[in-house]
Amino acid sequence: MIEHEMLSFLLAVAVLLGAARIFGEISRKFGQPSVLGEILAGIALGPSLLGMLLPEVNHWLFPTTGSAAIALDGLTFLSITLFLLVAGMEVDLSTAWRQGKAAMVTALFGMLVPFAVGYSLVRIAPEFMGFTSHTSIHLYALFFATALSISALPVIAKTLMDLNLYRSDFGMVVIGAAVLNDLVGWTVFAIILGLMGSAVDGNLANIFNTVALVILFTVFVLTIGRWAINRSLPWIKAYTTYPGGILGFAVTLGLLSAAFTEWAGVHAIFGAFILGIALGDSRHLRERTRATLDQFISFIFAPLFFASIGLRVNFVEHFDILLVITVLIVGTLTKVGGCLLGNRLIGMSWRDSWAVGFAMNSRGAMEIILSMLALQMGLIGDSMFVALVILALMTSATSATTLQAILRRNKKVHFQDFASSKTFLNEVNGTTMQEVIREMVEHMSLSLRDIDARDVLRKLLRREKLMSTALDRGVAVPHARILHLREPIVCIGVSRRGVECDSLDGNMTHLFIMILTPQDDNGVQLDILADVGGLFRDQEISEEIFSVRNYTEFLAEITQMREKAKLM
Amino acid sequence: MIEHEMLSFLLAVAVLLGAARIFGEISRKFGQPSVLGEILAGIALGPSLLGMLLPEVNHWLFPTTGSAAIALDGLTFLSITLFLLVAGMEVDLSTAWRQGKAAMVTALFGMLVPFAVGYSLVRIAPEFMGFTSHTSIHLYALFFATALSISALPVIAKTLMDLNLYRSDFGMVVIGAAVLNDLVGWTVFAIILGLMGSAVDGNLANIFNTVALVILFTVFVLTIGRWAINRSLPWIKAYTTYPGGILGFAVTLGLLSAAFTEWAGVHAIFGAFILGIALGDSRHLRERTRATLDQFISFIFAPLFFASIGLRVNFVEHFDILLVITVLIVGTLTKVGGCLLGNRLIGMSWRDSWAVGFAMNSRGAMEIILSMLALQMGLIGDSMFVALVILALMTSATSATTLQAILRRNKKVHFQDFASSKTFLNEVNGTTMQEVIREMVEHMSLSLRDIDARDVLRKLLRREKLMSTALDRGVAVPHARILHLREPIVCIGVSRRGVECDSLDGNMTHLFIMILTPQDDNGVQLDILADVGGLFRDQEISEEIFSVRNYTEFLAEITQMREKAKLM
Repeated sequence: MIEHEMLSFLLAVAVLLGAARIFGEISRKFGQPSVLGEILAGIALGPSLLGMLLPEVNHWLFPTTGSAAIALDGLTFLSITLFLLVAGMEVDLSTAWRQGKAAMVTALFGMLVPFAVGYSLVRIAPEFMGFTSHTSIHLYALFFATALSISALPVIAKTLMDLNLYRSDFGMVVIGAAVLNDLVGWTVFAIILGLMGSAVDGNLANIFNTVALVILFTVFVLTIGRWAINRSLPWIKAYTTYPGGILGFAVTLGLLSAAFTEWAGVHAIFGAFILGIALGDSRHLRERTRATLDQFISFIFAPLFFASIGLRVNFVEHFDILLVITVLIVGTLTKVGGCLLGNRLIGMSWRDSWAVGFAMNSRGAMEIILSMLALQMGLIGDSMFVALVILALMTSATSATTLQAILRRNKKVHFQDFASSKTFLNEVNGTTMQEVIREMVEHMSLSLRDIDARDVLRKLLRREKLMSTALDRGVAVPHARILHLREPIVCIGVSRRGVECDSLDGNMTHLFIMILTPQDDNGVQLDILADVGGLFRDQEISEEIFSVRNYTEFLAEITQMREKAKLM
Repeated sequence: MIEHEMLSFLLAVAVLLGAARIFGEISRKFGQPSVLGEILAGIALGPSLLGMLLPEVNHWLFPTTGSAAIALDGLTFLSITLFLLVAGMEVDLSTAWRQGKAAMVTALFGMLVPFAVGYSLVRIAPEFMGFTSHTSIHLYALFFATALSISALPVIAKTLMDLNLYRSDFGMVVIGAAVLNDLVGWTVFAIILGLMGSAVDGNLANIFNTVALVILFTVFVLTIGRWAINRSLPWIKAYTTYPGGILGFAVTLGLLSAAFTEWAGVHAIFGAFILGIALGDSRHLRERTRATLDQFISFIFAPLFFASIGLRVNFVEHFDILLVITVLIVGTLTKVGGCLLGNRLIGMSWRDSWAVGFAMNSRGAMEIILSMLALQMGLIGDSMFVALVILALMTSATSATTLQAILRRNKKVHFQDFASSKTFLNEVNGTTMQEVIREMVEHMSLSLRDIDARDVLRKLLRREKLMSTALDRGVAVPHARILHLREPIVCIGVSRRGVECDSLDGNMTHLFIMILTPQDDNGVQLDILADVGGLFRDQEISEEIFSVRNYTEFLAEITQMREKAKLM
């Protein structure tokens, strides 16, 4: 690599990563999976937008030939391999087994129906379904069928967590089904890739070899491999640097396994995925190490890969509206319908069956990766690729909302959703709970609009008289239901000196989280109280939260506390 | 990239990483920095060894042309850029300022003496000093002078930590001096690189521009940049995913800064290093996020880079014994001498002055990176490169031992250094302290060789009678000094049920760490007791340590506890 190519490579990686992260974060702000933003970032920087508006800038930033282009290619290839390693680590086979029948049936019908319909559709109307390539119509139909039947475990898991359903029976069935779905779907896809390679020389023995190799490899890694990994991990932890030993072991093994499947004529990512499952299954792999691997790969490598997708394809030019709508409708109907059918058969309620169907309908990153590979292999054309990416993004983007509507569940409430810098009081001076409440109500009175601040104050003080709202560990939660209030308001006050307010553990109170909710609040007061209570009960509170200097710093502390609580 | 090149790329990365990690760990087992092992791994896999023995395998694994070679090149280039970002984060400017005069003087003399001698040496005997290249003798001399005067902050910090000197006054002076040394050294090197680029057209205005640009950039990033980063971090933590927001921000900014310096004609890593300093300085960058970045980069990217060095150069062929010895002697004499001179001038004791000199003498990774770049730029030849790498490795490898000897300090004692699977008792059955001690002595009696087990038992029980050795939190430390015992022995017993032994906090005791030391033990008993006490006092003990099933699992738990304690 010569100098200006190094510059070009660095710049491409930096711009791609930066844009992907920013778009990804914006996407999350709208409650969408970050992969949506990451792909949009790539589309914006690629031929679809920047290439149209400023072709020279686009070409200068992302050359398509030369060493910088090859190096970027290699990096995104490595990224997706590592991403699949981590995705595999999230697959928990034992959950699937424990759910037994329900998960099996959901997975089975949720795959078979889309598979059958998808396959038939291509055979009936090949040209309409975008078949133009030089590969066999049979493989094309098989691929489309697989693409329709796949699910996206990570998106599904995230949706369930957001709705606080992850550990429920319902959640476990869905996760179990998604695990099976992923495993079978990827194995079938790996076989298709193997077939494609072998189909070139049309040798039936080769085809058989590839299929046998894929299945043998999968079984071997998930049994003997899994056992060996589980036995090696304590040894590695005991005798090597922590966590360098395990990180190196996991990544090296993942890449070797990827190299093996690549050699076998199946794509590298299949090997990484299967090895990830074997690795993630070990009880010796601690949360902390998992987190280090997962964080770096999900936040650095994955965004690079997903953004790079937008660079490769012109999404505007290859947007075939009819094909997009067909794929969307067929994909959703068959997936939801298949799951519905299966679940009704085993006696699940209508409501739950619908919900399972829509949960399983998210395709997320998995569909996109599958389609990208098919595109690179020349199995599908650009239009079909665009249609499948849109299917993946649309189903993932709508699944949380749909599930919420069907199950009539609300997202978990976070108290800070109702606070803002306007209702944050940096330094309260009061020395009693009464004084503090008075100060805080005064500070927030503008946010109350047409509601009488005196009335609010009276109600808060009355509640306080019944019994102090000071909890343990320096936190108090004065609260009241207020007539005519439309939306809950949370007001936050910090006292550095601390206030003596008869707390449960006798400590001084430093943090006042005042909760005002509408008179008829549908339980939101309880939800907010539970959120505050839970957050500050489970955690050791770092003193730093009592010395924040503005609302942003406060929010930063809270965000970190939540993140830590998740890890424990 | 076509298929077989992807396979080749994956395999190269996997083998390089795996070998580098294994050799790195072995190197650490011998008390050496892991970079030593990583480079040896590359030498073993490269032209020096594998290329001689099995040239085909070497060429098949690491092709030198084609897409796989370019992609690997790009990856190692990215690796070293990210490594310098993390290295910069470890530089704490405020430490250097606080140490003021002592650090300044040490840094100044420790740089000036090697610089002056190094420069003169090349001018006096250019051919002997390996000057053969087409660049100017002036630049060559400047480079060699800089190479002699650089230090390696990471190695120095690690050595001081191992000797428990990091937070001492002595340690702070050394670290402060190393920080200044690194900063000035890298800036001078960046200027040399800039000069090289400009020297091509011999335009004096260009040379001035480059130097001005480097200095302006450094000052800008370390003042305004540092301030802006410090202001942005709380905002990023508050409004983006944790830790994805910060990870993405740090890496993107690092790469952009690297791209800027690359564009300015100085190497990319200089920009990454300076930005790392600005980033690491912020109090809003938490240990946890630092650790995630640091761990992934130090244990995945850095080993890849250092191993790749061995692939590029034939260390056997270009080993010029005279040059190696000259560089070693001149490098060590001038560095140690310079520091000694400076420190004596400001009135430091002889012993401390010698110690500072040998501490600053470690060159470690920094020297290797500098030389690699000079080699790539064609500034130095292979023989000089090999000599400088050996200087770096030798000075790093000997610095801990030398320091220990000069300061008469021992390495920190870890109780498990004296334990083994033979002295580990998985499940003690006793229900009193006396019974447990009896059981444990019986179990370990073989390890006692010619020492009478009854005598050991008697001494342990007598000590126990004085006062129970049960500490807090379920740990007890029966101990005794034993006549004729040569080396300390630590025996470990685990009781799952727990034993009532009059502990300080009234809890049951689960973990028995029995410490036997020689009669005349030079305080090692106290050291071991302090180590156990410290480890179990600072930490919340996870229950898992009481349910380990063998010595390896026990060691894995202890290793993790130590690692966590470091992070806190």
